[in-house]
Amino acid sequence: MIDLRSDTLTRPTEAMRAAMARADVGDDVYGEDPTVTELQERVAAMFGHEAALFTPTGSMANVLAVASVVRPGEEVLCDSSAHIARAELGAHGAISGITMRTWTGERGQLDLAAIESMYAPDMGPFFVRTAAVSVENTHNFAGGAVLPLDDLRDLRAWADTTSTKVHLDGARLWNAHVATGTPLADYGRIADVLAVCLSKGLGAPIGSLMVGSADAIDEARVRRKRMGGGMRQVGVLAAAGAYALDHHVDRLADDHAHARLLGEALGLDPESVDTNIVVVDRPDATAFVAAAADEGVRIAAVGPRAVRLVTHLDVSRADAERAALVLSRLVDR
Amino acid sequence: MIDLRSDTLTRPTEAMRAAMARADVGDDVYGEDPTVTELQERVAAMFGHEAALFTPTGSMANVLAVASVVRPGEEVLCDSSAHIARAELGAHGAISGITMRTWTGERGQLDLAAIESMYAPDMGPFFVRTAAVSVENTHNFAGGAVLPLDDLRDLRAWADTTSTKVHLDGARLWNAHVATGTPLADYGRIADVLAVCLSKGLGAPIGSLMVGSADAIDEARVRRKRMGGGMRQVGVLAAAGAYALDHHVDRLADDHAHARLLGEALGLDPESVDTNIVVVDRPDATAFVAAAADEGVRIAAVGPRAVRLVTHLDVSRADAERAALVLSRLVDR
Amino acid sequence: MIDLRSDTLTRPTEAMRAAMARADVGDDVYGEDPTVTELQERVAAMFGHEAALFTPTGSMANVLAVASVVRPGEEVLCDSSAHIARAELGAHGAISGITMRTWTGERGQLDLAAIESMYAPDMGPFFVRTAAVSVENTHNFAGGAVLPLDDLRDLRAWADTTSTKVHLDGARLWNAHVATGTPLADYGRIADVLAVCLSKGLGAPIGSLMVGSADAIDEARVRRKRMGGGMRQVGVLAAAGAYALDHHVDRLADDHAHARLLGEALGLDPESVDTNIVVVDRPDATAFVAAAADEGVRIAAVGPRAVRLVTHLDVSRADAERAALVLSRLVDR
Amino acid sequence: MIDLRSDTLTRPTEAMRAAMARADVGDDVYGEDPTVTELQERVAAMFGHEAALFTPTGSMANVLAVASVVRPGEEVLCDSSAHIARAELGAHGAISGITMRTWTGERGQLDLAAIESMYAPDMGPFFVRTAAVSVENTHNFAGGAVLPLDDLRDLRAWADTTSTKVHLDGARLWNAHVATGTPLADYGRIADVLAVCLSKGLGAPIGSLMVGSADAIDEARVRRKRMGGGMRQVGVLAAAGAYALDHHVDRLADDHAHARLLGEALGLDPESVDTNIVVVDRPDATAFVAAAADEGVRIAAVGPRAVRLVTHLDVSRADAERAALVLSRLVDR
Repeated sequence: MIDLRSDTLTRPTEAMRAAMARADVGDDVYGEDPTVTELQERVAAMFGHEAALFTPTGSMANVLAVASVVRPGEEVLCDSSAHIARAELGAHGAISGITMRTWTGERGQLDLAAIESMYAPDMGPFFVRTAAVSVENTHNFAGGAVLPLDDLRDLRAWADTTSTKVHLDGARLWNAHVATGTPLADYGRIADVLAVCLSKGLGAPIGSLMVGSADAIDEARVRRKRMGGGMRQVGVLAAAGAYALDHHVDRLADDHAHARLLGEALGLDPESVDTNIVVVDRPDATAFVAAAADEGVRIAAVGPRAVRLVTHLDVSRADAERAALVLSRLVDR
Repeated sequence: MIDLRSDTLTRPTEAMRAAMARADVGDDVYGEDPTVTELQERVAAMFGHEAALFTPTGSMANVLAVASVVRPGEEVLCDSSAHIARAELGAHGAISGITMRTWTGERGQLDLAAIESMYAPDMGPFFVRTAAVSVENTHNFAGGAVLPLDDLRDLRAWADTTSTKVHLDGARLWNAHVATGTPLADYGRIADVLAVCLSKGLGAPIGSLMVGSADAIDEARVRRKRMGGGMRQVGVLAAAGAYALDHHVDRLADDHAHARLLGEALGLDPESVDTNIVVVDRPDATAFVAAAADEGVRIAAVGPRAVRLVTHLDVSRADAERAALVLSRLVDR
Repeated sequence: MIDLRSDTLTRPTEAMRAAMARADVGDDVYGEDPTVTELQERVAAMFGHEAALFTPTGSMANVLAVASVVRPGEEVLCDSSAHIARAELGAHGAISGITMRTWTGERGQLDLAAIESMYAPDMGPFFVRTAAVSVENTHNFAGGAVLPLDDLRDLRAWADTTSTKVHLDGARLWNAHVATGTPLADYGRIADVLAVCLSKGLGAPIGSLMVGSADAIDEARVRRKRMGGGMRQVGVLAAAGAYALDHHVDRLADDHAHARLLGEALGLDPESVDTNIVVVDRPDATAFVAAAADEGVRIAAVGPRAVRLVTHLDVSRADAERAALVLSRLVDR
Repeated sequence: MIDLRSDTLTRPTEAMRAAMARADVGDDVYGEDPTVTELQERVAAMFGHEAALFTPTGSMANVLAVASVVRPGEEVLCDSSAHIARAELGAHGAISGITMRTWTGERGQLDLAAIESMYAPDMGPFFVRTAAVSVENTHNFAGGAVLPLDDLRDLRAWADTTSTKVHLDGARLWNAHVATGTPLADYGRIADVLAVCLSKGLGAPIGSLMVGSADAIDEARVRRKRMGGGMRQVGVLAAAGAYALDHHVDRLADDHAHARLLGEALGLDPESVDTNIVVVDRPDATAFVAAAADEGVRIAAVGPRAVRLVTHLDVSRADAERAALVLSRLVDR
């Protein structure tokens, strides 16, 4: 089976497991795990921010990050297919008491005009205050689309003219970085707070980080405990993340090349495949997924009419080529 | 001063005050206030639903109504300028734990294609479930626009094919009813749950109602108490509402005519003014509002570039004509 | 029927209705209702605080007041039979995200030793911080018991040595004031924030107030809107409250005398009846309530083994005497 | 340094690390991690329940477990020093919308009379419903006290006569099991839902489980995702937990013996030390903790006047003896 359902499926490599097995650990609730402390400092520095906080999942990193810039009763604006809107089970409302309004950008892109039009300043007991705009780069449900740095800078400039904060859901920011060559610090600069993930394309089994100011991280540490994310000997996981940062960032270029192959097989312009995700309209989504599975290729329906394929660490060149062959045959049927 | 900031400004008339003063009352937390019980039954019947519940505000009626069809961690879809999204201070997230995604309809209109595209069925621990669609008729921030009954029926038909519920924010449904002649029961039929208001165009000082099934109302009664809406001798308010239903519905046609006058004065096509609200783009919103005030006409900024005027019970024909004169002069400046 | 179930049952008198009918009103969401503004200033001054805010119910006043001193994720300590713990439908958790720990005081009294033992300062991501202590005076489910001023002052002194705030649920503080002669300002002095009610013993149909600092009230105004408490022409209700303050405070002494009569009839030491409430243990609570109703006296079960009687504006001396006779006969059976 | 601050400090042994390194893994959000699935089934069976769910922390297991039996707006009763009340940062209110009332049991023991007296059935819009009672065994802040099985059975019997559920916080239930010889299934039988922890005395680096009915676990799986606990290749952690169950349960008897040594050194009756925790009153808590640290023994203040010592996997007999010597000298000073 070639499994293209998600890059969350990656299994830790032998070398990564070895790094985990020898990790120096301590109780991270007491702030005494040296491996996670080092990883947090490293990742904060990569993005030019003061501090970072390890979390068990990208969802928790996003919830903590958004809550650090949006208070209960305030709103965050985002694309209508953003991960925070669609795939975090309503946590921002249910846990953080936050509301959202959404715009619908072509391929998940920023729509600054829509943002400006929705934006509401603090008007006391009259309107919900827009506290933050959230952007996702790369954009999962928009097929791994990259948000151009210029658009992000325009957003930052606009945000600076209001009291609006910018949250960057960077679960797959490493992919944007590799695909465009944009330095991570440039992404760090446009955001007040970020979430990045180690367990998707980077291949760590578990782990994400929230990145932001020292104050925001201090506050998030309390909130993380409240959410049940205050784990103990976290070094065993952080060691995997550190290994991934050392060894699995540059190779994302391979995943991107494989995704273009698959996109082409599905009849898309390969140029439209920015990174490691291909989302294609299939009115027969469920049937198409089943047919591919019969041929040994697992893909996912992400909506009644949308199919998603994701390349990753456990998909070799040969796998990608075989999957492309299978899918092109199915499309031609 | 002619006050066009909102139809919430209406003051109870002498006759309405007299009705309040002689109202038969009891403790409504015990379900023993005959005047409110009668009003609730009357309003439920008007919309062809089983039951209704009196609330101190339209916001509370909406929060209770939406919560009756959307559970914590689920989402409601609505227009991005809906009252529930913009003007209820984030209650649906902060109090009910609900998230929203929004579409942007021209003049607040339904966009069934956007709804279908955003809709997500129950997919277990993967995606936020779309539990309901909320529509607002007439649509406040879209200038009192009426939603055509055919569009509402299309929404109802689509909703019936999924497990989606329909919430109708009918704070000004009376205006839609008078403007189009559509029977109230026809509106009731397209919604699982409604909120209607007595204290806007109808002129009661305080009071709204949630309308829905008997089960939903029973549950809402508990939730209303939790929200601090379990008032006691409510009959003093319900009597005003009953008086308003008897005497102030048909006269909304006058408000609509006055609003058209004002729209024309502001350079709008009078045909574009559906009911008693005029919203006009003014890049100089704050200055324009101030200039009108200097001339004895109070209007409101409802965004950095939007000005709103609302006609109501306390604005006579003569008032409307004078205000139109003032505003047309300001526009011509 | 003599109705002793609650002092919330009082109906507005003719004079009170007349005051309501002639009330000067405006839109209170805009802060333009002169009658409610005057009432708010008057009540704030009575307690020596900066500001007050009218709410539709005592529950909402309590939720706003507690939320002004306890943030989500923090705790308030209170007696285990406090109204905020038992009778507000879990609002403090469900709406404000607050947790409680409770002590069990004899007759609802303060237990400063228990408070000190439960108290937890801010310890970062380790323990829930104790943000406030809430006391209720008079104490409803403890039979209208008065909390001695000295105990309240001890609490205040202790609170001043920590960062703990004091919330006073004064729904029936007027009764404590009349029963003990303690000036209202003395009660105001021991609390950071209070809630007082106009619609219980004072006989107004609807209305309570939160009392506190100007900043707390500003914040509460936003939260009140979010909770659906932002009513419009509130003067029609505030006029009743003002009338009640003018005419119905001193007469609470009559209610207290009537309650002592009833307590004696039920076999209690009349000295143990502090104010207008009698709570008596009856293992046969439901049957006893039914038997009394058969004799024309309505009382309430407030627990599987507790019966409550409340005297109020609509219970005359003759009513109280007749009820006492009925109840003493039932007790003797 | 001998570190007695908590049994959460244990570091994974070499053998445990080796088990982690060879764990068979998959994406547990898809339910495809064989190691975690096997562990969940094993733990469910140990307690005679249908299903179990792995969580990153004991706090998350408790939040999910309590939320499975208490809805927003309902209450749970527990001891005032319960972990769920004191040490989960208010999650049950802030995340689940639940309120608590607490009793104060001697050494954390059950007080069925207090529970019966606080219990409130569903009374519609009047009182908060008591949905569950939560008990903690062993009881952390009561010094690792064991709750007698007979008391738990009495609670179960009482709960069966009402609609009340029982939640058992069994973070250290293994210690109770070893100390008393009570079969785990006997504990399982008295609870509707449990939480047990692998990362305290058992020595796994990360991981707890909620245990309950299949339906409750299905619902908790969604809630876990919402809380950010939907981790991916969880087998790397579950393998440590499975290893701990195989090798680290019986040896808890050593921790208990060590704790008795320490208790004796602190002047306690060794019979009063039930398991691996010693809590002792020290009015000079902070100074005492500092003095012990100067002598190479780290202990913790768990309140302004309470000191806690915990024995665990990384504290040898020799360590315990040395620490006892140090502490007895400090006490004698």
